[in-house]
Amino acid sequence: MNIDRIRAAAARLEGHARRTPMLHSPFLDEIAGRRVLIKAECLQHTGSFKYRGARAALSALDDETRARGVLAFSSGNHAQGVALAAREYGVAAVIIMPADAPRIKIDNTRAIGAEVVLYDRAGGESREALGAALTEARRLTLVKPFDDAEVIAGQGTCGLEIAEQATGFGVREADVLVCCGGGGLTSGIALALEADAPGLRVRPVEPVGFDDVNRSLRSGMIETNRATTGSICDAILTPSPGTLTFPILHRLCSPGLAIREEETLRAMALAFERLKLVVEPGGAVALAAALFRRDDIAGDAVVCTISGGNVDSAVFERALSTVGSS
Amino acid sequence: MNIDRIRAAAARLEGHARRTPMLHSPFLDEIAGRRVLIKAECLQHTGSFKYRGARAALSALDDETRARGVLAFSSGNHAQGVALAAREYGVAAVIIMPADAPRIKIDNTRAIGAEVVLYDRAGGESREALGAALTEARRLTLVKPFDDAEVIAGQGTCGLEIAEQATGFGVREADVLVCCGGGGLTSGIALALEADAPGLRVRPVEPVGFDDVNRSLRSGMIETNRATTGSICDAILTPSPGTLTFPILHRLCSPGLAIREEETLRAMALAFERLKLVVEPGGAVALAAALFRRDDIAGDAVVCTISGGNVDSAVFERALSTVGSS
Repeated sequence: MNIDRIRAAAARLEGHARRTPMLHSPFLDEIAGRRVLIKAECLQHTGSFKYRGARAALSALDDETRARGVLAFSSGNHAQGVALAAREYGVAAVIIMPADAPRIKIDNTRAIGAEVVLYDRAGGESREALGAALTEARRLTLVKPFDDAEVIAGQGTCGLEIAEQATGFGVREADVLVCCGGGGLTSGIALALEADAPGLRVRPVEPVGFDDVNRSLRSGMIETNRATTGSICDAILTPSPGTLTFPILHRLCSPGLAIREEETLRAMALAFERLKLVVEPGGAVALAAALFRRDDIAGDAVVCTISGGNVDSAVFERALSTVGSS
Repeated sequence: MNIDRIRAAAARLEGHARRTPMLHSPFLDEIAGRRVLIKAECLQHTGSFKYRGARAALSALDDETRARGVLAFSSGNHAQGVALAAREYGVAAVIIMPADAPRIKIDNTRAIGAEVVLYDRAGGESREALGAALTEARRLTLVKPFDDAEVIAGQGTCGLEIAEQATGFGVREADVLVCCGGGGLTSGIALALEADAPGLRVRPVEPVGFDDVNRSLRSGMIETNRATTGSICDAILTPSPGTLTFPILHRLCSPGLAIREEETLRAMALAFERLKLVVEPGGAVALAAALFRRDDIAGDAVVCTISGGNVDSAVFERALSTVGSS
């Protein structure tokens, strides 16, 4: 895995992935006590960065393999990314989703044209067995959500843009806070910044209780979360970093941060108020860290990702009401 | 008023105003029955296009005049735009606002650093008398919300971007639906498109009952709304088009459209769900027209502005609940 693969993915994504804006607000700067630059990846196609990796993976397949169709496991954002990339190529996408995933993500995945197969996550049904049977029977290609070189390369294209945009704002030395599940986006951005903006240091941000990457960075080996559900940050509850992503994270990342639920909700409300962006809980933890962990961050500026915006209106209203009408 | 003035404003705004993205969603295209390109001006500084005109007006003043400070009348978005432009120049801004304006707009205007003077709109207090007294006493320069050549030029810079971005999407012939109050944005965009993309025809969009511009276009003379309050679209309840904006609108605009409140709320909910954008009611009417007036629009594509995102959370929650949780 190296920078050339990310640049190759960027060339293939040109004209397909959206170059998302880097936003800022004096109100947020004041809360954070420093300049906050926000990569608004919730404005990416399908509402999250996942489209980048999905399009990169599908575009790397040979025509014959791709034509047979693809399969993915996903609680939602990866599902939509794969579904859209498959639709663009006119090939089938089968998505295996937990039955308790947010309804908007299931509905959207179907509406994009994918075939959605639900499994009982809480009841312990094996999605892997389900996927293996489908893959075998229909000769589909599995598109992994993060532990795949082409997927990491696709997410890394977000890092190329961060390097260019942050430099455009005159920011060359700063922490780059990234919402982190399995580490695909985090490792891709870290590799891109190593090459293009080495003064920008990636730090993974996770929910409290689901900080497997943070703990893995500290221990130097892959650690696993005890719980798999029980956080509003559904998009980033991956049990552990991947075998491909972890060595990259370990080599390149500064210490991670873990965010409480009320901080996540407050960050969502502030993104509503100050940025006019809809952010999902799992996409808001890095902004929460930028805003509410002033003493854990160094420097005059901080960069953070808003990685997704696929949130049910009930959860969004909860975020707005938590902080009160304003 | 001509295109050179808009280009001059664009040069002065370079590096200050944000070049907002043009977004689209296959879900919205399906509802509209054609391609919908959305100029996301809610992502502009201060959450609306008004910053463009304010910065253009302040940057056109000579240093000595500007240093004495500026004054504006505004229900909110123009206020914030003027307040930020004044702060950037380090000069005083006095903003006269109706006491019943959305709290977020009053709070934000103060937080940006302006001095806010409230007046009793419903009770018939004269804001003009209040403003004249202040202008006289402190030798402030009035920055009008729309009926000023530099303000129109500033808003027109949004039109230069629309011309370039729509052409980038291959759209050269289309209706361009613009949220319309006094006509500053609408006339500015119309002038820019006349020069740079003459196949794009501007159509003003207003709330039902506040369609003074629509009626003025039909009658050929300036018409006035009977009501001045009673719509959720607070940003665009101007009683009549301006003496500068109307001749431009009359010369360049195709027929306007008027939107019902439930359509506005539904457009806000769809922008939440499909674009991940926070849109205020007055900023959503053009999107509503693009989505729900299929038979009143011609062609394979339509362009619309989302002109602002400064909405109280209570109104936003109402939009989400109107269409149900999804």
